[in-house]
Amino acid sequence: MLQPTDIVGGTFWLLSAGMAAAAVFFFGGTFWVAGKWKTPLAVIGSVSLVSAVVYFRVTETWIDAGTAPIIYRYVDWLITVPLQIVVFYLIVAAVTQVSVALFWRLLAASSLMLLAAFLGDAEYMNTTLAFLIWAAGWVYILGELYVGRASEVYSKDANETTRIAYFWMRLIVTTGFAVPLLGYFVDNFTGGVHLGGLNVVYNLIDILNKIVFGLILFRAAMKDSQVA
Amino acid sequence: MLQPTDIVGGTFWLLSAGMAAAAVFFFGGTFWVAGKWKTPLAVIGSVSLVSAVVYFRVTETWIDAGTAPIIYRYVDWLITVPLQIVVFYLIVAAVTQVSVALFWRLLAASSLMLLAAFLGDAEYMNTTLAFLIWAAGWVYILGELYVGRASEVYSKDANETTRIAYFWMRLIVTTGFAVPLLGYFVDNFTGGVHLGGLNVVYNLIDILNKIVFGLILFRAAMKDSQVA
Amino acid sequence: MLQPTDIVGGTFWLLSAGMAAAAVFFFGGTFWVAGKWKTPLAVIGSVSLVSAVVYFRVTETWIDAGTAPIIYRYVDWLITVPLQIVVFYLIVAAVTQVSVALFWRLLAASSLMLLAAFLGDAEYMNTTLAFLIWAAGWVYILGELYVGRASEVYSKDANETTRIAYFWMRLIVTTGFAVPLLGYFVDNFTGGVHLGGLNVVYNLIDILNKIVFGLILFRAAMKDSQVA
Amino acid sequence: MLQPTDIVGGTFWLLSAGMAAAAVFFFGGTFWVAGKWKTPLAVIGSVSLVSAVVYFRVTETWIDAGTAPIIYRYVDWLITVPLQIVVFYLIVAAVTQVSVALFWRLLAASSLMLLAAFLGDAEYMNTTLAFLIWAAGWVYILGELYVGRASEVYSKDANETTRIAYFWMRLIVTTGFAVPLLGYFVDNFTGGVHLGGLNVVYNLIDILNKIVFGLILFRAAMKDSQVA
Amino acid sequence: MLQPTDIVGGTFWLLSAGMAAAAVFFFGGTFWVAGKWKTPLAVIGSVSLVSAVVYFRVTETWIDAGTAPIIYRYVDWLITVPLQIVVFYLIVAAVTQVSVALFWRLLAASSLMLLAAFLGDAEYMNTTLAFLIWAAGWVYILGELYVGRASEVYSKDANETTRIAYFWMRLIVTTGFAVPLLGYFVDNFTGGVHLGGLNVVYNLIDILNKIVFGLILFRAAMKDSQVA
Repeated sequence: MLQPTDIVGGTFWLLSAGMAAAAVFFFGGTFWVAGKWKTPLAVIGSVSLVSAVVYFRVTETWIDAGTAPIIYRYVDWLITVPLQIVVFYLIVAAVTQVSVALFWRLLAASSLMLLAAFLGDAEYMNTTLAFLIWAAGWVYILGELYVGRASEVYSKDANETTRIAYFWMRLIVTTGFAVPLLGYFVDNFTGGVHLGGLNVVYNLIDILNKIVFGLILFRAAMKDSQVA
Repeated sequence: MLQPTDIVGGTFWLLSAGMAAAAVFFFGGTFWVAGKWKTPLAVIGSVSLVSAVVYFRVTETWIDAGTAPIIYRYVDWLITVPLQIVVFYLIVAAVTQVSVALFWRLLAASSLMLLAAFLGDAEYMNTTLAFLIWAAGWVYILGELYVGRASEVYSKDANETTRIAYFWMRLIVTTGFAVPLLGYFVDNFTGGVHLGGLNVVYNLIDILNKIVFGLILFRAAMKDSQVA
Repeated sequence: MLQPTDIVGGTFWLLSAGMAAAAVFFFGGTFWVAGKWKTPLAVIGSVSLVSAVVYFRVTETWIDAGTAPIIYRYVDWLITVPLQIVVFYLIVAAVTQVSVALFWRLLAASSLMLLAAFLGDAEYMNTTLAFLIWAAGWVYILGELYVGRASEVYSKDANETTRIAYFWMRLIVTTGFAVPLLGYFVDNFTGGVHLGGLNVVYNLIDILNKIVFGLILFRAAMKDSQVA
Repeated sequence: MLQPTDIVGGTFWLLSAGMAAAAVFFFGGTFWVAGKWKTPLAVIGSVSLVSAVVYFRVTETWIDAGTAPIIYRYVDWLITVPLQIVVFYLIVAAVTQVSVALFWRLLAASSLMLLAAFLGDAEYMNTTLAFLIWAAGWVYILGELYVGRASEVYSKDANETTRIAYFWMRLIVTTGFAVPLLGYFVDNFTGGVHLGGLNVVYNLIDILNKIVFGLILFRAAMKDSQVA
Repeated sequence: MLQPTDIVGGTFWLLSAGMAAAAVFFFGGTFWVAGKWKTPLAVIGSVSLVSAVVYFRVTETWIDAGTAPIIYRYVDWLITVPLQIVVFYLIVAAVTQVSVALFWRLLAASSLMLLAAFLGDAEYMNTTLAFLIWAAGWVYILGELYVGRASEVYSKDANETTRIAYFWMRLIVTTGFAVPLLGYFVDNFTGGVHLGGLNVVYNLIDILNKIVFGLILFRAAMKDSQVA
């Protein structure tokens, strides 16, 4: 039973229920928007659905066992982070001609960095090496999004709606995904972190990274499709 | 096992089942109404879905542990109340030109007031201060809805259907959301309240605030889209 | 575990599974029929969904505790019976010009009669008084459906399909909802009833009242929309 | 926990998961096919959904208690067999002018024969009498399908697609529903049957009777609607 | 409770959640693509749904009992592998005129080889014989896909999109389904395998075989239908 003053458990619960609603919302949206927006929106819907399933389960663990090791989140992140990075490719590809190689680069970089992070956190790999791979992957992806091929969404014929959405989604990803990296750094190289506090921060960050991220995409898709 | 004479548990059960049905109903409706009504209806559908998930869980707690502290409801309210307030912005934005700043003001005010309420009820904040922030946020939102930018839905070219829906939805929100504020006041500044009785009142209020609110929106959307 | 010879449990199980299938069936149907039939069909879909949720739960109680007091059904009836009565208003409103006051009269009468029934059965109200309020509400609703405003579906320009559906749905409601009234009478004013037997009767009646009722509506809606 | 060598439990599991997938598949199909095929396909979707719900439950019983009396299946059959028989009426009615009396005859005959079978197996009725009613109902239905009004699907203007589907679906029903009748005979009038073996046979038969039956209908509907 | 360092359990969890999201994704896609792509996409959606149901269950077993015998997977494979092989027939049939006999040959060969594999692994059949039947079935299917009737997708008027999808899907099936065959060989004819390691490999292979396979199909269907 969730204790009335258990803020950590409360945010887990809130995150799970919110993700379930977001999943239905985004999948519903795929039916109303124009063709090119359907796939990115369905991807964010899948991301939310996976998160809902994982976090309902983690919430149970928190309530039953009173703990929810950060390592659990990698199950979610290993699926959802690469998918979210791929959404940028899908948006750029819908707007301008872009090589499919960009897709593979983004997918490989994001999968590798999460895998390293997981192996480091589970202590299957040297934590410093894991951190460096993670950081390197992260810098590479930001490079693609800010100055690489993916940034061509600005220089070409994308309309205002797409550009604004791209700008905000990139900003969310930049700040939002920096938090786990920072949390990993603090946890492993300083005196460690307070597990409960870290869980609250990560839960709020996940709402930003997935639900707010998806809502911006949804809004742009609806506007661009001239539905609303 | 729910006892036959357990009215509190009965209203929890009724609320959960009703919310699940409302969620399916409203999401179904998004497919039939015109473009501009899809998003507000999907938002109310999400609100109902989150409530269904939360209250099925609270019902379990009530049956298993014989208690359901009011604090549990904040998990639901922290997501659903801001979303409902946002629905007013979406309706006004669909009818007339309105600044996106109104959206942020309504979202911020409703989130802040709920956060203060939660912190006050969980005794992480001075209960009087929390009450004042809550009340101030509430007065501000009503100001926007009755005499502020959101009220321009009346002065501009909204049709009769939209106006009537706006009138009733605003009335529901005005009276409906005053109840938790009043309950908080009585609970903290007078001799306290009877937990069972308060739960029954809140359950009925939630049916009014979410399901009846949503049905009015649904009706207006169907009529305005000339579907039925 | 359900015992092989447990007919009561079997009908509970059958009712729950049937309601779930009916809910999906009716919600599916809302997408195929013409605009004016969407809302009544979605209402019956919601009725079935609420019933499915409630009866899956009651089935558990029956299997675990070996009992399922009739009072449990009021949780279901308090939501579903008023909704079903409202369906008649929706059909009439789709066919001819009818005052919205009829909607409120039907909703109020059906809600009040069920509330009285619940309070009487839970012994919060004098059982004779509760029975009288229930009976009066019932007679009033039948009056509206047979000779009141709702019966104008016959005198105006409704087509053959709608009339036939209205006729059968009214007949189902007339006979079907008389059974709980009779059961209440026998239980309270004669020597009482056999709980298991009453549950079987009520389960079969609920299949008639909701699933068969809904199928007639579905059939009329499909035919009138010239889908099939 | 399901034992690795438990073939009976494996087929229960397989049947449950398959039915769930079939239900989604058939309900999805109702959106793509032409109007007259929507209802029969939705009926088969409902049949699969009821079966999925019932068999997930029976699987639990098998795993927990190590037994799954045949009587459990009547809960499923009492709903699904009459619905399947009704599908033939719906197909014939879509193709040619056929009296609604045929619908009632098929529904009554199939419901009665299943009810007798259930009462016989639960030993509420003389097993020989129950067997005779079952067999008589079965022969009557086959009569309608092969030489009665329902067979007019051949003599009138049905197209090739419909005829082939009708032929195979009738063949499945003929052989598939003969198995439970045979099983009942062997179980009651000879030395009895091996429960595990009978369950395996019934599980495979149910896949044939419902999933393969439905796929043939789906294929014909898609082809006739010129979707694929 | 899943242990933080339990990689096997983590991949089970990841696989289950991923399959659920994939099922919703693919079923969603069936509504957007052109008629001829709907059925193959719905088949892959059903495959994912069955896998999600089975693996959520196997995950439970792994967490509760600390083991997940490979034999459990046959419940999944017996349904899903034949369905996947059938997808090739559906693609070829959509592009060119192909005999329905190919469908039956592919279905029979894939069902038989899985049945033999299951019987061999459960030790109901000689493991060497089972292996030979499995291998023979596998070679036969590859023959059909590479040089048989199914390969005519290349020689006839299929467009570029279909050909590329066919090429990659065939490659996935070729390599992906070789892994269980290899695992069976190693497990039975050499010193046996490490159960945890084998489960990790099979989980990753199942993501490749079903989710990546389905995504390629989805992409081709969207492109060919000129939706995105």
